Amino acid sequence: MKARVHVMLKNGVLDPQGEAVRHALGALGFDGVEGVRQGKVIELDLAAGTTEAQVNEMCEKLLANTVIESYTVELS
Amino acid sequence: MKARVHVMLKNGVLDPQGEAVRHALGALGFDGVEGVRQGKVIELDLAAGTTEAQVNEMCEKLLANTVIESYTVELS
Repeated sequence: MKARVHVMLKNGVLDPQGEAVRHALGALGFDGVEGVRQGKVIELDLAAGTTEAQVNEMCEKLLANTVIESYTVELS
Repeated sequence: MKARVHVMLKNGVLDPQGEAVRHALGALGFDGVEGVRQGKVIELDLAAGTTEAQVNEMCEKLLANTVIESYTVELS
């Protein structure tokens, strides 16, 4: 089974990487880019029977810094 | 409107960051993690009327290194 985890900076946390991308897109002539947030996506190949609770625990312990980041888990 | 872009290393391209995460999860006692790939997710706030073709062009020109990375675009 597979799990996909998205880790994004929480709203209100400054995202300098996203700001740099927004600025660079403007400089390349792409108008109308009003905001950019950049995060991580982590694709996990898991043994059958792994539960969503275990994936959440991986996020809490390692994958996300829950002080400033939020995460979402999709199993497939 | 919003667009979400996923940028992942292509299959066959070594992903040391993913390998490090896999190793760290094992060290934390999470068994059954067979593979990890890590990529980027970029959320764009776009002016109304921006087309998917324009977002693809942003990916080709800036967001992804298409030599080693593939990207997918979701508009919403």
